[in-house]
Amino acid sequence: MTNASDTPSEPQYGPASAALAPRYSGVRTFARCPHVSDLAGADVAVVGVPFDTGTSYRPGPRFGPDGIRAGSQLLRPYHPPLDIDVFGTLSVVDAGDLAVTSGNAARTLEQIAQGVEAILRAGVVPLVLGGDHTIVLGELRGHAAVHGPMGLILLDAHADTWDAYFGEPYAHGTPLWHAVKEGVLDPHRSLLAGMRGSLYGPHNLGDARAMGFEVLTTEELRATAPADFARLVAERLGGGPAFLSFDIDVLDPAFAPATGTPEVCGLLPHEAIAFVRSLVDVPFTGFDVVEVSPPYDNASQTTAMLAANVAYELLAIEAKRRAS
Amino acid sequence: MTNASDTPSEPQYGPASAALAPRYSGVRTFARCPHVSDLAGADVAVVGVPFDTGTSYRPGPRFGPDGIRAGSQLLRPYHPPLDIDVFGTLSVVDAGDLAVTSGNAARTLEQIAQGVEAILRAGVVPLVLGGDHTIVLGELRGHAAVHGPMGLILLDAHADTWDAYFGEPYAHGTPLWHAVKEGVLDPHRSLLAGMRGSLYGPHNLGDARAMGFEVLTTEELRATAPADFARLVAERLGGGPAFLSFDIDVLDPAFAPATGTPEVCGLLPHEAIAFVRSLVDVPFTGFDVVEVSPPYDNASQTTAMLAANVAYELLAIEAKRRAS
Amino acid sequence: MTNASDTPSEPQYGPASAALAPRYSGVRTFARCPHVSDLAGADVAVVGVPFDTGTSYRPGPRFGPDGIRAGSQLLRPYHPPLDIDVFGTLSVVDAGDLAVTSGNAARTLEQIAQGVEAILRAGVVPLVLGGDHTIVLGELRGHAAVHGPMGLILLDAHADTWDAYFGEPYAHGTPLWHAVKEGVLDPHRSLLAGMRGSLYGPHNLGDARAMGFEVLTTEELRATAPADFARLVAERLGGGPAFLSFDIDVLDPAFAPATGTPEVCGLLPHEAIAFVRSLVDVPFTGFDVVEVSPPYDNASQTTAMLAANVAYELLAIEAKRRAS
Amino acid sequence: MTNASDTPSEPQYGPASAALAPRYSGVRTFARCPHVSDLAGADVAVVGVPFDTGTSYRPGPRFGPDGIRAGSQLLRPYHPPLDIDVFGTLSVVDAGDLAVTSGNAARTLEQIAQGVEAILRAGVVPLVLGGDHTIVLGELRGHAAVHGPMGLILLDAHADTWDAYFGEPYAHGTPLWHAVKEGVLDPHRSLLAGMRGSLYGPHNLGDARAMGFEVLTTEELRATAPADFARLVAERLGGGPAFLSFDIDVLDPAFAPATGTPEVCGLLPHEAIAFVRSLVDVPFTGFDVVEVSPPYDNASQTTAMLAANVAYELLAIEAKRRAS
Amino acid sequence: MTNASDTPSEPQYGPASAALAPRYSGVRTFARCPHVSDLAGADVAVVGVPFDTGTSYRPGPRFGPDGIRAGSQLLRPYHPPLDIDVFGTLSVVDAGDLAVTSGNAARTLEQIAQGVEAILRAGVVPLVLGGDHTIVLGELRGHAAVHGPMGLILLDAHADTWDAYFGEPYAHGTPLWHAVKEGVLDPHRSLLAGMRGSLYGPHNLGDARAMGFEVLTTEELRATAPADFARLVAERLGGGPAFLSFDIDVLDPAFAPATGTPEVCGLLPHEAIAFVRSLVDVPFTGFDVVEVSPPYDNASQTTAMLAANVAYELLAIEAKRRAS
Amino acid sequence: MTNASDTPSEPQYGPASAALAPRYSGVRTFARCPHVSDLAGADVAVVGVPFDTGTSYRPGPRFGPDGIRAGSQLLRPYHPPLDIDVFGTLSVVDAGDLAVTSGNAARTLEQIAQGVEAILRAGVVPLVLGGDHTIVLGELRGHAAVHGPMGLILLDAHADTWDAYFGEPYAHGTPLWHAVKEGVLDPHRSLLAGMRGSLYGPHNLGDARAMGFEVLTTEELRATAPADFARLVAERLGGGPAFLSFDIDVLDPAFAPATGTPEVCGLLPHEAIAFVRSLVDVPFTGFDVVEVSPPYDNASQTTAMLAANVAYELLAIEAKRRAS
Repeated sequence: MTNASDTPSEPQYGPASAALAPRYSGVRTFARCPHVSDLAGADVAVVGVPFDTGTSYRPGPRFGPDGIRAGSQLLRPYHPPLDIDVFGTLSVVDAGDLAVTSGNAARTLEQIAQGVEAILRAGVVPLVLGGDHTIVLGELRGHAAVHGPMGLILLDAHADTWDAYFGEPYAHGTPLWHAVKEGVLDPHRSLLAGMRGSLYGPHNLGDARAMGFEVLTTEELRATAPADFARLVAERLGGGPAFLSFDIDVLDPAFAPATGTPEVCGLLPHEAIAFVRSLVDVPFTGFDVVEVSPPYDNASQTTAMLAANVAYELLAIEAKRRAS
Repeated sequence: MTNASDTPSEPQYGPASAALAPRYSGVRTFARCPHVSDLAGADVAVVGVPFDTGTSYRPGPRFGPDGIRAGSQLLRPYHPPLDIDVFGTLSVVDAGDLAVTSGNAARTLEQIAQGVEAILRAGVVPLVLGGDHTIVLGELRGHAAVHGPMGLILLDAHADTWDAYFGEPYAHGTPLWHAVKEGVLDPHRSLLAGMRGSLYGPHNLGDARAMGFEVLTTEELRATAPADFARLVAERLGGGPAFLSFDIDVLDPAFAPATGTPEVCGLLPHEAIAFVRSLVDVPFTGFDVVEVSPPYDNASQTTAMLAANVAYELLAIEAKRRAS
Repeated sequence: MTNASDTPSEPQYGPASAALAPRYSGVRTFARCPHVSDLAGADVAVVGVPFDTGTSYRPGPRFGPDGIRAGSQLLRPYHPPLDIDVFGTLSVVDAGDLAVTSGNAARTLEQIAQGVEAILRAGVVPLVLGGDHTIVLGELRGHAAVHGPMGLILLDAHADTWDAYFGEPYAHGTPLWHAVKEGVLDPHRSLLAGMRGSLYGPHNLGDARAMGFEVLTTEELRATAPADFARLVAERLGGGPAFLSFDIDVLDPAFAPATGTPEVCGLLPHEAIAFVRSLVDVPFTGFDVVEVSPPYDNASQTTAMLAANVAYELLAIEAKRRAS
Repeated sequence: MTNASDTPSEPQYGPASAALAPRYSGVRTFARCPHVSDLAGADVAVVGVPFDTGTSYRPGPRFGPDGIRAGSQLLRPYHPPLDIDVFGTLSVVDAGDLAVTSGNAARTLEQIAQGVEAILRAGVVPLVLGGDHTIVLGELRGHAAVHGPMGLILLDAHADTWDAYFGEPYAHGTPLWHAVKEGVLDPHRSLLAGMRGSLYGPHNLGDARAMGFEVLTTEELRATAPADFARLVAERLGGGPAFLSFDIDVLDPAFAPATGTPEVCGLLPHEAIAFVRSLVDVPFTGFDVVEVSPPYDNASQTTAMLAANVAYELLAIEAKRRAS
Repeated sequence: MTNASDTPSEPQYGPASAALAPRYSGVRTFARCPHVSDLAGADVAVVGVPFDTGTSYRPGPRFGPDGIRAGSQLLRPYHPPLDIDVFGTLSVVDAGDLAVTSGNAARTLEQIAQGVEAILRAGVVPLVLGGDHTIVLGELRGHAAVHGPMGLILLDAHADTWDAYFGEPYAHGTPLWHAVKEGVLDPHRSLLAGMRGSLYGPHNLGDARAMGFEVLTTEELRATAPADFARLVAERLGGGPAFLSFDIDVLDPAFAPATGTPEVCGLLPHEAIAFVRSLVDVPFTGFDVVEVSPPYDNASQTTAMLAANVAYELLAIEAKRRAS
Repeated sequence: MTNASDTPSEPQYGPASAALAPRYSGVRTFARCPHVSDLAGADVAVVGVPFDTGTSYRPGPRFGPDGIRAGSQLLRPYHPPLDIDVFGTLSVVDAGDLAVTSGNAARTLEQIAQGVEAILRAGVVPLVLGGDHTIVLGELRGHAAVHGPMGLILLDAHADTWDAYFGEPYAHGTPLWHAVKEGVLDPHRSLLAGMRGSLYGPHNLGDARAMGFEVLTTEELRATAPADFARLVAERLGGGPAFLSFDIDVLDPAFAPATGTPEVCGLLPHEAIAFVRSLVDVPFTGFDVVEVSPPYDNASQTTAMLAANVAYELLAIEAKRRAS
């Protein structure tokens, strides 16, 4: 199932050839890449985290990795706007899903941290398919164990910086608070972008800013040119280790209906993706795409397809940076 | 189920606390506000009008109030763009639904007029959840009984100014014609905005203009800055009593698929909402959101959620004006 | 919104009159009964438990109470097969939802136990709308606190007698094991009926039987006449306190698609309801209908409507017994 | 678009040949029969009545004729169980839809009566596709104008014998009361079969019986052999003119979800169709299939397909009787 | 079913009057125009090609003509932005569907070519409703048989210029390659606009350009003013015979989810339609709208409605040009 | 991903342990069995054939293998009614999908024949997931190449014995005619059961009988006890090589809506499965489950889940026979 490879420079792993079997055939892996457990020879491991105990409204992201895999079957190797052969540059595998414990966020966060750290220690970049946003705390722990406190670039409708939800410490609105408290996330090197929708009070975003985060609302983000966004990101990160988290709800619900806490008036896909593409120079140590909830998708699975394309954009900036 | 209230300035009624029960719990009322029949202590009464006998194509708005209530569970008190604590400023109740008579538009219009007038006489602002657009005739009768002939600001894909439909006087394309004839609506103090789609002839909008209405097509509206729109509205209204009616079909069908006579190429939500927010200085005597048809919504109820957010924007401009 | 009541024998609470407003109007309560918090004057309190952290496959029962309420709007007072005026005999209220803590089953079970016990101490019969089946442990604790160890009549595709799930004690496959261990459930006075589908091994049902439960598979149940079922139930219960739990997945997925772990070849609705009606002489201290997962329902909400009718059948046998 | 016809006995009109174009091609007419307005040469005219102002809960039957036409594309000429070549025996056309006036039941009933009478006067049997059940009053008026007071065989979950609904005389629960009062329907020669579900009181079916109707509940019907049903029908009709009305809600909601007031525990399709086939000797003057509400159907349009098959069964008994 | 016509200048055929029957009534034809087989008196024949053997991912366009007809019922005669009475200018009929052979693309292409040529020879402009894009090869053969090698203006997410797909010559990604090779399409007089999404390599679009096509990506198209687009089209066509093909997947999947190979970040409807309207001066010999796959549409059929409106825009530019 | 195995008698391959990861996690393979390409050590290979060019009405079975895999995640090892540990007895793998050529049935049939023959030559039983029913011709070729002319036991609503469809030899209504003509199928050792629905004439089933097939309609099948069915099957097969094909449309559309040519009044699942289980003594050389069309499934994927359970029943009779 790997690409035929005559030359040493060809990646070891990549999508099954669409010249041999239709794109709708075979077991569904991300972008039809091989499903392997031994990561040797891989540059990027796409890995699912099917966990949604942390959702506060609509559940379902436990089926997110499956949905995104299904939505990724049409992805092809070459990315015209960045002029990069993504799968010709990166060796990409589908590493399956990390172990999780439904109903136990604390234990799951440890399982995620260990799983992500193991991928990183193998010299492989993890691209995580969520799962609700609770999981980013586990991811940040895993990255920080290898790289130290992380800078975070977040595209999301919500700041996720509460300290608890109904007395429960770990839920999809709280990961960043805990990450900062635990020292695995450096808010002063982080940027939260895309916030919108009604809040409990002005303190909501104020608290995030008081913690040290830079916050850009959707309105502010929409008024920012991608190049300016890239400059702002570079300034915030200051060259330190960085993680990019893409919450699908940063997009408008018409484009991404299948998510748990949708907010109206979101970004259009080409707006959001322009911001991602602008970060082609940032050496992120990992990525995620979270909060896709397939039970709420429509018949054509537009959310899952869009999420798969966002994941592909993340691969594309990684490939482009390496090829440059 | 009312907010705890220690200080005299706290509104008497507002959403159930999301700190006590998850947002998906309990009987569905608008924004989780208390369902009361005695309006004493309320500033705004959200009230449904589950009537759809007037629909000319797809029926279903009789389930509109129920759908919008379901779509409103995620609304929170604070509105960042207007910097206003909506439910901290306004005492808002869900007054249930007005009585209607399915199959009898004439009788229903009287039931609506009486219901709306009663709310107004209690010193409360009615925010009506439709129902098809026929109902605005009943609303205007109720408002005019208290305030005299009304000015109308309409956001809608259709001008609704026919005189009859298949010989029937009362249907969702005719309320404004009757309202003018009955003297409850002053076309010269009204603005119809958002018209688009194919028509029976150039006379369709011409007739509306001949009656005295100002008409803006979607293309014209899209080319108008919100501040200019606000100026135009102020000029039209001339300080007289005013009503704001929001037909969900002014939005593009991708964002609001669940409506009876969708027209392609509509406004994007953030475009439409910018026009609403621009009217923060207008003392409307009432509002409605109409033509939401839940049987045609998608799995994530994007139309209902969007309509609930439009209703919230109407509350926000009311709150902001009062707080200013 | 309560029924007019001229005679002392009329129940205090019941459905809103369908002669005053269409059945699709108003805030959705169970069967259009009044939503009250003070239970004085009520015979039965319908109460939701919107909890689904315990689901092992498809989530969504947190929206079960809302779905069942929506599906109950067509229920009318008179039950022809049992010849009983259900709402003319019983005073029924919708008590809203019990407090739950998403993500924390242990805490939620205590919240349920306290809520159910409070209803029972008020002399009112609780009819719980789930929620996943984990919640029955909380219910049984509440009942046992008042009545001592309970006998259970269960209609369900699964026996729910595991001791843990992924190391987590409380999940929707484990409540009965814990209930027996805690002494709130007497397996020797219980009957588990409707089991079917593939299992991990013959020990699955064997374990349940070894604990003392009587177990009837769907095939055995289908071969049992309702009168024989009633006789078997009476023998098992032996006159002691009894609880009736109806898991919607005992029905075939064509009739009840919206559930988390469907099993093919289930009962037809008229088969299952005949078993419920046969229990008209049993003085149950409470009831539940669980595992309805609205995100997986179809456009006509057949599962929610069927679950609402099952709840109505439970009310009917309670009414019939009292009237006899 | 008519069948090639070599022999004089071939019907003039029938389905387009499936050997010339795939069944999914072309403009949708009932069973791919020609759409004509001149009825000369036709034995049966299939005609839609897209009216749903009379619905009391879920609207949508205005799209019933369109849905049933779409669901009829797979129908083929030969009916194995009755061993009859339906379209080889009967000349069948699709006569389009009768004129209706949305929102005005009284006027629509007259339009239906005139339309049906015209078909009958042309010597053609009308097979009406509803529309909500209100329309049967118009149909009975049309038939009675030609044949005198009619006997009615009704398969339906509801008896439809109320006198008014919210003060409105004409709605889908009232046609039979008015038909009797107007003298176009003879209750003593009628049979209402399939009633089930909760009622307002024992008087509901009692009133129907007091008017002279024979009433069979679903439970009674299920316990009746088709041959016994046929005998009972023959006795009731006593050889007088007869109409057969099939309300799709006589079927269980799992098989016919797309209807306005579904009741659980209905007939299975093969049970209901066996009753229809048993009436192969009755010379009905007309037929209808009503209450199909496509907005509530599922993706595979099971209700519409089933309704189309019921219509085909009605054609089959007509063909069989003529061929005998 | 044709329009009453008092004056010689009235078109012979047009939509059924919406004053006589509701828009949801009757057999579904395109825009409620008469379904005729004799094209005399027609200016434009709308004709379906229900073929989808050429789809490479999601099938379903065989139901495209049916879906677009259903989505066209709300179209009215007057087009405000172009100020043209479309159906008052053009005589439009629905000519049904061309014969096709499912599973045999080669034979179907000949059937299409013959069908289109026959329409053209009758002096009528064909407006084809697809069907997958394979069919454009048949259309181009038909046009070239009458007019010689055609210029093509394509709005599409994909260039469709492969030579084969899994060794099969005719599939929806290959029609343009074959059309050029067969000499029925002149790439030097053609423009392919709207390309986007991942590709197999930079050669994909390069090959198209090497063949002589001008190619505009979605990003380039979005940056082009409609008037500039019109100028570019005029330059490319150079006054020769021209065909306009509109693949619905040029639009963003949120607006057109029902298509076989959706690509994210597409045009918004008002963007795409502005390009169509800009071509009001081009005398196209024919048009198509392809790749609508109804099984993947949502409940409100937004894709089908949008496709019907695109077809209406094509009629509008044809009408406007003739009226000028 | 294989089961831990301490004893030599444990199968080499089987489902991933549900004690290590939730059933909704990981890449979707049939019943969570390992996806392998080397069949050594396997008893049964589940393999998809994603082909639907042969469908005559609704397409979509190309997504059948993917849908059935998704619907199989809840399958557990032990089968109570047959008292057999299915995955403890059989070593089962998911071999992915066979190569197919969309749009070219002739070539695909050869690909299937080769693929199936290779599995058989490896000493492994193929269980094929379709795909439309055209594919059974390829399967029979593969089996006959190893075992000689096959006996066929078919459960299906249609006899599939036409010789051509629109002149095309290979489509889903023709495989059995070709299989007989090619000598790979012996009609005299075959039984076609479950036929129902309208036909083109009495010759349809007559032709099948004339070819030598025994045919049982759904009505006849429903009147046959499973043990009698088993006896009839044994008589027909006469001990020769046998294949079992299960077309999902033998089931009623309420249970299996997602299929291309549904026929009303089909078998209930427990009826159909009883016939399968009755064949526990027949040494079939292979099996298939065909005609599942996921685009037409409902939100809870009832068809896909049911098809997965049918496949499990096929495994169960194979396991039981081997264990006996």
